[in-house]
Amino acid sequence: MKIIDGVKFAATNCKIKYKNRDDLMLAIFDEETKVAGVFTNSQIVSPTITHCRSAIKDGKAKALIVNSGNANTFNGEKGEEIVQKTAQTVAKNLNCNISDVLISSTGVIGELFDYNLICDQVPNLIANANDSSENFLAASKAIMTTDLINKTSEIETQIDGQKIKIQGFAKGSGMIAPNMATMLAYVFTDAKISSKMLEKAFKETNEESFNSITVDSDCSTNDSAIIFATQKAGNPEIDQEDDNFKLFKAALKEVMIDLAKKIVKDGEGAKKLIKIDVIGAQNYSDAKKAAFSVANSPLVKSAIAASDPNWGRIIMAIGKSGAKILTKKLGLKIGESIIVENGEIHKNYNESAVNSYLKANEEVLIEINLGLEESAKATVYGCDLNEEYVTINKDYRT
Amino acid sequence: MKIIDGVKFAATNCKIKYKNRDDLMLAIFDEETKVAGVFTNSQIVSPTITHCRSAIKDGKAKALIVNSGNANTFNGEKGEEIVQKTAQTVAKNLNCNISDVLISSTGVIGELFDYNLICDQVPNLIANANDSSENFLAASKAIMTTDLINKTSEIETQIDGQKIKIQGFAKGSGMIAPNMATMLAYVFTDAKISSKMLEKAFKETNEESFNSITVDSDCSTNDSAIIFATQKAGNPEIDQEDDNFKLFKAALKEVMIDLAKKIVKDGEGAKKLIKIDVIGAQNYSDAKKAAFSVANSPLVKSAIAASDPNWGRIIMAIGKSGAKILTKKLGLKIGESIIVENGEIHKNYNESAVNSYLKANEEVLIEINLGLEESAKATVYGCDLNEEYVTINKDYRT
Repeated sequence: MKIIDGVKFAATNCKIKYKNRDDLMLAIFDEETKVAGVFTNSQIVSPTITHCRSAIKDGKAKALIVNSGNANTFNGEKGEEIVQKTAQTVAKNLNCNISDVLISSTGVIGELFDYNLICDQVPNLIANANDSSENFLAASKAIMTTDLINKTSEIETQIDGQKIKIQGFAKGSGMIAPNMATMLAYVFTDAKISSKMLEKAFKETNEESFNSITVDSDCSTNDSAIIFATQKAGNPEIDQEDDNFKLFKAALKEVMIDLAKKIVKDGEGAKKLIKIDVIGAQNYSDAKKAAFSVANSPLVKSAIAASDPNWGRIIMAIGKSGAKILTKKLGLKIGESIIVENGEIHKNYNESAVNSYLKANEEVLIEINLGLEESAKATVYGCDLNEEYVTINKDYRT
Repeated sequence: MKIIDGVKFAATNCKIKYKNRDDLMLAIFDEETKVAGVFTNSQIVSPTITHCRSAIKDGKAKALIVNSGNANTFNGEKGEEIVQKTAQTVAKNLNCNISDVLISSTGVIGELFDYNLICDQVPNLIANANDSSENFLAASKAIMTTDLINKTSEIETQIDGQKIKIQGFAKGSGMIAPNMATMLAYVFTDAKISSKMLEKAFKETNEESFNSITVDSDCSTNDSAIIFATQKAGNPEIDQEDDNFKLFKAALKEVMIDLAKKIVKDGEGAKKLIKIDVIGAQNYSDAKKAAFSVANSPLVKSAIAASDPNWGRIIMAIGKSGAKILTKKLGLKIGESIIVENGEIHKNYNESAVNSYLKANEEVLIEINLGLEESAKATVYGCDLNEEYVTINKDYRT
């Protein structure tokens, strides 16, 4: 794995919470790097989120610094001071503006820590930053909290005959880890692309990736996904919605869906990834609403955990979703098996075949046709619900 | 327990699913009985729901017939035929209109059954109907599916010096029982009240009782709550929003909240009832949204199961709810302990005291102040989440 031109990584242990593993990472970008990001919709947010929302406005970035083990959320003015001191220290040492420093935190809510734990490590991180794959992987591990594995992804494609790369890493056991509930995702590309098109590609792709996954319907105060484009590849600048933009977006989507699926697969107690395709919807929003209603239903999730083709629960979840449905045209498939067609149970429906399919596969497909002519569609990824989920979340802190 | 004047009950075993217990009940009302009802918001509904919505329009009722063991949902035209034949048979035997017969079904979705199993029992039920408390209790048990206990409630109050009674029964292990996910509630009163005021009192009270409970956020295709007023009490007719209306509504609310809480307490695997009071909201809808977000959060529910005062999870659930919040005025109490005040952790917050409170009580209180001057409020009842919930729902059918 060769890291893209224009970015260097470093990681270290700053001992906010973890004593024997890296819990702080820094990425340093070359001049001209452009940035775009999306952040949690929660009304209660970490001051890191407030800082990032403001910092990405000019579309430029020089550094990204992320700690794990503490979310720096609900810490009042002292929490804001941590963000200010961190940004000031990084900016001073890299000779850049405070608004060129992006900051994320993930971990426990409502516990203060000493900002010097972070600030004291900055010179050391800068000294050790390089573009080795080792440092990239170390950075991807430093942001983990209850994740069982680090999650990385990369793709290479061509735009106008020029190679471009997209690489990224993410953390989050879904949105489910106790007080450490944050999903963080960072994507890096050497593509030459305007700020406007970078933001557009990232926001649209985010809707179909990180905004299309669920482990338990809980969402965090610190969720962040940020993309950095170093502009180093030799492609002609992507500055409008042309074929090159589409090529870039398609490649970006692959990396982001790959990272998103890795988050769901690492969901606490999860043993199966559930892909839910909704078609025949009134519009994209309705399709997604129906898909999330199924993906978040504890009854559907526990049935899948038991490889039980309990399709009545899926019907229930579709019905309650609020999405517009034409019941007489409703369709439902699990894997390749048609269960409901035109609003009725299919005459050849074979429950034991679906049971075998669910048993045999770690990634299972539920396809739902809402039956409307407008035919909008959406895909959502969820996971099954096992006793371990409850046990893990009961045992935390006790 | 003396049953109100003007209603008789009977129950029997019709063997749709259960072989050794009553699974069919009939209530017969005297002339002049008025009816009002509220039904599921699901877009996929049983034909019993369609029938009831139409049948209550004239405000009159002669009979209520309810079977358990089969929801008669997603059965196509054959399902509609079951409803027609049932209504016809009851109407013919009681010499009333089809639109005076209310019908509910609860149980498995998508499985047909022979309507004669119900229709053949109608003459027998009519012959055996009486106003004994034994028959009332038998009726309350005949509607159960996975419920562990039958749920009844009654209250007596005075309006203008005249005694009136309100009695009721309900079923539902929350909205959570596998394919048998239905909440049914029936309330009976001898009060003299106009159709319009009966409907108004019932709808408003329903919002604060059955529409304010959650076990797992799943909702059914067959949910129904219906009230019958036999007009037999000697009170002057309640026909406007005066003090007598308020007295009636207050008594009705007590019965309905009592039944609603009994449903939550019987939630699968539930060991604790969680009462969530939200105050300081922009409006009632926002208050309820925040309360439900906390009540439905798997992370909050599993923390309470472990008696863990993990207040960060409550903050997360408030933040993601979409309700308007003034973070600087945010407040949070568990029991009598103040945890957050004016957006900050309270200086005297003692975690072990809250832990002891959660351990010692089967009914626990979470009070949330969203901090807004409008000061609207709402109360929602939920329950904790234990491994048994997942086990029960995995094991069903397997």
